[in-house]
Amino acid sequence: MTRRRKKPADSLEELRRRLAEFAEKRDWDQFHNPKNLAMALAGEAGELIEHFQWLTPEQAARLSKATREEVALECADVLLFLLRLCDKLDIDLAAAAKRKLVINAKKYPVRKSRGRATKYTKL
Amino acid sequence: MTRRRKKPADSLEELRRRLAEFAEKRDWDQFHNPKNLAMALAGEAGELIEHFQWLTPEQAARLSKATREEVALECADVLLFLLRLCDKLDIDLAAAAKRKLVINAKKYPVRKSRGRATKYTKL
Amino acid sequence: MTRRRKKPADSLEELRRRLAEFAEKRDWDQFHNPKNLAMALAGEAGELIEHFQWLTPEQAARLSKATREEVALECADVLLFLLRLCDKLDIDLAAAAKRKLVINAKKYPVRKSRGRATKYTKL
Amino acid sequence: MTRRRKKPADSLEELRRRLAEFAEKRDWDQFHNPKNLAMALAGEAGELIEHFQWLTPEQAARLSKATREEVALECADVLLFLLRLCDKLDIDLAAAAKRKLVINAKKYPVRKSRGRATKYTKL
Repeated sequence: MTRRRKKPADSLEELRRRLAEFAEKRDWDQFHNPKNLAMALAGEAGELIEHFQWLTPEQAARLSKATREEVALECADVLLFLLRLCDKLDIDLAAAAKRKLVINAKKYPVRKSRGRATKYTKL
Repeated sequence: MTRRRKKPADSLEELRRRLAEFAEKRDWDQFHNPKNLAMALAGEAGELIEHFQWLTPEQAARLSKATREEVALECADVLLFLLRLCDKLDIDLAAAAKRKLVINAKKYPVRKSRGRATKYTKL
Repeated sequence: MTRRRKKPADSLEELRRRLAEFAEKRDWDQFHNPKNLAMALAGEAGELIEHFQWLTPEQAARLSKATREEVALECADVLLFLLRLCDKLDIDLAAAAKRKLVINAKKYPVRKSRGRATKYTKL
Repeated sequence: MTRRRKKPADSLEELRRRLAEFAEKRDWDQFHNPKNLAMALAGEAGELIEHFQWLTPEQAARLSKATREEVALECADVLLFLLRLCDKLDIDLAAAAKRKLVINAKKYPVRKSRGRATKYTKL
């Protein structure tokens, strides 16, 4: 119960740990170098977009239940390789995400970016 | 304080919420449909691999501090778009990741996959 | 002049040869192994989609002249790495493309696939 | 015979034309807008790298005959969507590739880039 308080259902650290165990049991660390993991992540991102490529934006927003579950599992694959990559590079993903949020808030001030998808370099 | 106990530093739900706020303030929900977000995620995955493409696996495993921070921020970008995509599709990413771990454990039994990078379809 | 007749302006073989020369002059063959080239290609594909990610399908179909030229050069990058990859793997890209056209014609018979974006596995 | 002289086996224009016919017969132009085609291309690039992700650079350089053919067909897919995308955007891919070669020759002068994989922005 104490543990549950510290590691809730959606803790990245908990997932990271489970993935490390998974790989270790299978002796997969030999394959899980950062270069390979970055490739695997990109491969999963490719599988993810394949679900959307022929859909109109409207169709993409109302997937069937079955497709939504397929997409959910592709999203999971992206996250799992992302966590694995960060683990191998000793990157704290949650902390990096927070740093990036701060950076983005500066790059995209509300006043200048409101309602515009323009890249910050062209704002 | 109670809240902090439930949402620790690495909670995906906490990040999801902050991203939703970020987009709402900028009126970006109009751009953040699932199709566009899947593309943005794939674009970030592309930026991520560019860091590794000319490195040997050995070089990729010992990045300079500066490059490691660049990579950390690319990883953050992948996570942020992934969370945004899941939010828009009403997918619980942490739950999906756990379902996928269970599926992977079945696809890759320790006995058959130990020390082998073979895809489950060819095991 | 005879040569020009055999290798016209849009010959893949001519481009392949020029790329090989380009790399050789710079002593880049050491970096251009198939694994690295596949990554570089995926990275360029990621840059390409970034141009389209926030556009509606309608906007994507009528790019400004400047953006169209940026996209043209990204497309060029994809082709250049693709040719380089095929060169290193001793794959005749034009011949492979023709084999694939024949395969696709079988996978997607006109009668079954007319007006449908359904993958052949689900036709 | 005259035609054969102008359009050799590896002409991009010839492939472009065959793809346009293929799509037209199936009434697929409705799906083949530039945004969707860019996604499809990225998806194929993702499938391509999946073949290489767990291989060492050495293994990637000596694929089995069967894997090499799989890779050849993935390369074909990338080219086919690339040509389709360029067709829809009215981009002359071969001409763009030549423009890019000229640009690259300036970005990467032999003297500065010899034996180095450094990006031109950091040369």
